[in-house]
Amino acid sequence: MTLTIGIDIGGTKVAAGVVDDDGKIVESLLRPTPADNPELVAGVVAEAIKELASRHEVEAVGVGAAGFVDETRSVVRFAPNLAWREEPLQKKVADLVGLPVVVENDANATAWGEYRFGAGRGETHVVCVTVGTGIGGGVVVGGALYRGRWGMGAELGHIQSVPDGKRCGCGNLGCWEQYASGNALVAEARRLAAMDPGRASVLLEIAGGTPERIEGREITEAARAGDPVALEAYAWLAGWIGQGLADLAAVLDPGCFIMGGGVSAAADLWLDGVKESFAERLTGRGHRPLADIRTAELGPSAGLVGAADLARMP
Amino acid sequence: MTLTIGIDIGGTKVAAGVVDDDGKIVESLLRPTPADNPELVAGVVAEAIKELASRHEVEAVGVGAAGFVDETRSVVRFAPNLAWREEPLQKKVADLVGLPVVVENDANATAWGEYRFGAGRGETHVVCVTVGTGIGGGVVVGGALYRGRWGMGAELGHIQSVPDGKRCGCGNLGCWEQYASGNALVAEARRLAAMDPGRASVLLEIAGGTPERIEGREITEAARAGDPVALEAYAWLAGWIGQGLADLAAVLDPGCFIMGGGVSAAADLWLDGVKESFAERLTGRGHRPLADIRTAELGPSAGLVGAADLARMP
Amino acid sequence: MTLTIGIDIGGTKVAAGVVDDDGKIVESLLRPTPADNPELVAGVVAEAIKELASRHEVEAVGVGAAGFVDETRSVVRFAPNLAWREEPLQKKVADLVGLPVVVENDANATAWGEYRFGAGRGETHVVCVTVGTGIGGGVVVGGALYRGRWGMGAELGHIQSVPDGKRCGCGNLGCWEQYASGNALVAEARRLAAMDPGRASVLLEIAGGTPERIEGREITEAARAGDPVALEAYAWLAGWIGQGLADLAAVLDPGCFIMGGGVSAAADLWLDGVKESFAERLTGRGHRPLADIRTAELGPSAGLVGAADLARMP
Amino acid sequence: MTLTIGIDIGGTKVAAGVVDDDGKIVESLLRPTPADNPELVAGVVAEAIKELASRHEVEAVGVGAAGFVDETRSVVRFAPNLAWREEPLQKKVADLVGLPVVVENDANATAWGEYRFGAGRGETHVVCVTVGTGIGGGVVVGGALYRGRWGMGAELGHIQSVPDGKRCGCGNLGCWEQYASGNALVAEARRLAAMDPGRASVLLEIAGGTPERIEGREITEAARAGDPVALEAYAWLAGWIGQGLADLAAVLDPGCFIMGGGVSAAADLWLDGVKESFAERLTGRGHRPLADIRTAELGPSAGLVGAADLARMP
Repeated sequence: MTLTIGIDIGGTKVAAGVVDDDGKIVESLLRPTPADNPELVAGVVAEAIKELASRHEVEAVGVGAAGFVDETRSVVRFAPNLAWREEPLQKKVADLVGLPVVVENDANATAWGEYRFGAGRGETHVVCVTVGTGIGGGVVVGGALYRGRWGMGAELGHIQSVPDGKRCGCGNLGCWEQYASGNALVAEARRLAAMDPGRASVLLEIAGGTPERIEGREITEAARAGDPVALEAYAWLAGWIGQGLADLAAVLDPGCFIMGGGVSAAADLWLDGVKESFAERLTGRGHRPLADIRTAELGPSAGLVGAADLARMP
Repeated sequence: MTLTIGIDIGGTKVAAGVVDDDGKIVESLLRPTPADNPELVAGVVAEAIKELASRHEVEAVGVGAAGFVDETRSVVRFAPNLAWREEPLQKKVADLVGLPVVVENDANATAWGEYRFGAGRGETHVVCVTVGTGIGGGVVVGGALYRGRWGMGAELGHIQSVPDGKRCGCGNLGCWEQYASGNALVAEARRLAAMDPGRASVLLEIAGGTPERIEGREITEAARAGDPVALEAYAWLAGWIGQGLADLAAVLDPGCFIMGGGVSAAADLWLDGVKESFAERLTGRGHRPLADIRTAELGPSAGLVGAADLARMP
Repeated sequence: MTLTIGIDIGGTKVAAGVVDDDGKIVESLLRPTPADNPELVAGVVAEAIKELASRHEVEAVGVGAAGFVDETRSVVRFAPNLAWREEPLQKKVADLVGLPVVVENDANATAWGEYRFGAGRGETHVVCVTVGTGIGGGVVVGGALYRGRWGMGAELGHIQSVPDGKRCGCGNLGCWEQYASGNALVAEARRLAAMDPGRASVLLEIAGGTPERIEGREITEAARAGDPVALEAYAWLAGWIGQGLADLAAVLDPGCFIMGGGVSAAADLWLDGVKESFAERLTGRGHRPLADIRTAELGPSAGLVGAADLARMP
Repeated sequence: MTLTIGIDIGGTKVAAGVVDDDGKIVESLLRPTPADNPELVAGVVAEAIKELASRHEVEAVGVGAAGFVDETRSVVRFAPNLAWREEPLQKKVADLVGLPVVVENDANATAWGEYRFGAGRGETHVVCVTVGTGIGGGVVVGGALYRGRWGMGAELGHIQSVPDGKRCGCGNLGCWEQYASGNALVAEARRLAAMDPGRASVLLEIAGGTPERIEGREITEAARAGDPVALEAYAWLAGWIGQGLADLAAVLDPGCFIMGGGVSAAADLWLDGVKESFAERLTGRGHRPLADIRTAELGPSAGLVGAADLARMP
């Protein structure tokens, strides 16, 4: 049994954990992300590693971070949340901790975690879609992460769903994540509630009265209570997710899609709708198997576990 | 030096050729496709193989066919042009010729040919887009064709470009190939010429006077002669191709795109436009290298050559 | 009590009738439209008029025809169905019959008939939308038809619903009538049935087994029998109609919409959906009254009755 | 010669003027709009009227205000900028000043001003499109403002241009004013400049270095200096304006469009593009006259002048 450390650098917290060969977390800890000062992140990460390494015999470290990670798994070329540009994260951390380090895109790490120890076990072609504030993606094919030529593959949230559509933080118009993410769900529910407050009475009551206070949690609660606007917002989300999965299936033809991220906790409200939308829009339907669409199993620690496991790979 | 036979089954002709280790065609022949009677196709293919095999020492046969080929590279599950459904083409041909046979999607075979002997040599992540009457696609990653879980990967023409857009032969609305194929170019040029015949005077003269007679060849000739409608149609095509390549880059992050198919012959009229459109729409632009976009090198025989080479693979 | 004659020139039949001050049809007759030879249409119309005039004391004639009628109500500038170009229909008919003649767009005549004697009585701002093979429109404001500067107002079917959408017979892409007409309903039902025959089993059985045989009548029957594809097609139609009405309300702010044409016979299948879609999409909703949406009352003779009444107007 | 007073209530300033029969402004004054306290607006308006009335013999007052004005020209039902809801503005002002008062939507007043004394003189069917931060519209037909059944006609900025497109302040998605207004121009120029700063070097220099500082003025200056991003943004704007005008022509068939608002000052940068886009997209083109598209003549005082003239109408 060998141990490695996995790190998941989020916008607010750094999660670190010691993980064994079976993907079990032996020990974990959380540190606040010094988001104001991205220069300090490597130090925080290194401190967490050193603390864990002082109590466990670990062989390597895998770090998952939001952003474009280059093809050498060393440099974060661009991270929207942390204002990193060409950050040599691998070298910084490795120098501080004296262990082998690999850096990976966080959604890729999540996909790997699910593939190895979660909902993707036994599959050969896995597309993992993380539906949170945005959409993250990871693709595992033939036992390896699909990283692309420059390490920037599987930026699944940025295929275009609507020409001249809603503006995306990436600078383009109409990206999938403007329609199929948790933020998109919230925006749509707020819009519908503002247009017709009477119809959204349950949702608005849960949210304290104003559309601006509606967040994902409120939509979920209201939908489960039968609020028509909350249900419509979830149906809308499911339609767009299904369309995007159909596009991805045209390109990647996976055996399964794994749906992760915060929105996956409310899968009862959208999974059937996604399957229906996907099946209606899949090109060649009727002449090919339907990829299974399932929810992730590892929850929020998938990225950490995946990063730790990736640290074992040469 | 070993020899194999490559076959390219088109809607009107079956091309067959003996190909050497270097992708050189030693001998080739053409037979009409019995399109009215798809039952007969395997026989025509077998006859061509036997004729070539009578004059060359060949080890195996690769057959490229339009349609969904299953993951065992044996069965054509669905072929729009030949009305095949679950056609056991591999077994039929192998039984008739007594040689090892593999069947492959024709666009995949083309991609493989270009990767091995053409515009993709030396690349690790290649996306080949064949722009003809429709759009075909093939993806080569890490020295292997990307085939997907069920053999139906890289159906690139069927990502959705326009929600509720033009109807596609696949049954969906708004597929990329309704905007970025040779047929789409013709439809747009005809539409523009019918809307404003005066502006399309050169194009209409070349086409014999009526929009319905406009085909790709006429648009190309008129565009080179400066006809504003023909130029506008090509610019329109280039914009849509570039958008689709940007979507593919978000998913696949290739090192290069290879543009093949009939439209590639007029690359002077659209390649710059495609590069510009791609660069404007690529997510993360400025923080990543731009994939190169280049034309195919092997011409119409790429599929045959690729199929022959794939026959060598276990 | 004065009598006038109203004519409705359709693609297959010419309907003619003697109409009194109250919009009652005193006598009517039908003649086949010589669609192959549009030169002959005026003659057929004149014969019908003469026959009716031989039995009734009539004062004037109103002729409704599909197409762009000029602002002098004399010339059909362009008629898609009859290949008329700059047809001086008013003069031709008047010369043959020796009565005052006015020519009007058929959808305008229908709108006028409904305004005067049907669903629009007592209203001041009426938008009539005729949903048949295409979409026709007529607008009545302040007691007069809205005809526009050149007589070509209220071509409501040709506002754009989808940029780069389905091709319209008018040469544009994405016109409303490609989404909200009877033909659009049929195309969508066929598409859905071809994509998923199992789900459309009732519809396909009614239609004799193949998607190509599905027409509006079959969709209506299947929808009433609960066929999910037929119901989905009607819901889809209703959504698009409602969106278009919301656009029209932004411009015209009518007191009511009158829905006519062949599709109106199945209003039980779409009227509620239209109202819902309209209410969801109306700009300023909540701060303005909702225009009423109702079905036409006069049925297929609305155009004839309206044309006859327009003949009384100076 | 009779005199009336026209008022134009803007978001920051109240403009008031004494206007004669010929649309000439005899005297005018400006007051700050008490935007924080909409209760006070009627008082400010009344003070301005009383001051002017103390020096001129005036017969009536016309007040133009942004928002939905009811069909009795008395109540502002909803004003986005001033947080008015069901504001009885006519009564409030009339009670304070003791003169006949009519209230009108500001874009309607502008259209009327241009129709009577500006670019619309002599026309019978005028559509005035005010392109400023949003889009306002006014329609004059047969010598009268087209107001609709409830006074809310000609909300031209809220026809849908893009299904599921950019979110509009009105609560809908994809409204025309999200693509064809001054704000849309600024958003697009910022987006393009952020995507490719090198290409926008002139524009960014003029704007002080950052995309966020780009406003309309900077885009205009940069476009005139040849900046490719500024020119592209203007071409994009022109394309969308032209599309919307084509939609309006399908419904209203006007003799001319009058383009007003802040953006009209830079007509050299977009008017030709609008005409081209309009002509390409007009349904029935080739079979109908093209409406003329021209810029407004009265400038920012059109609303005041129009409101004053409307005060003369019973």
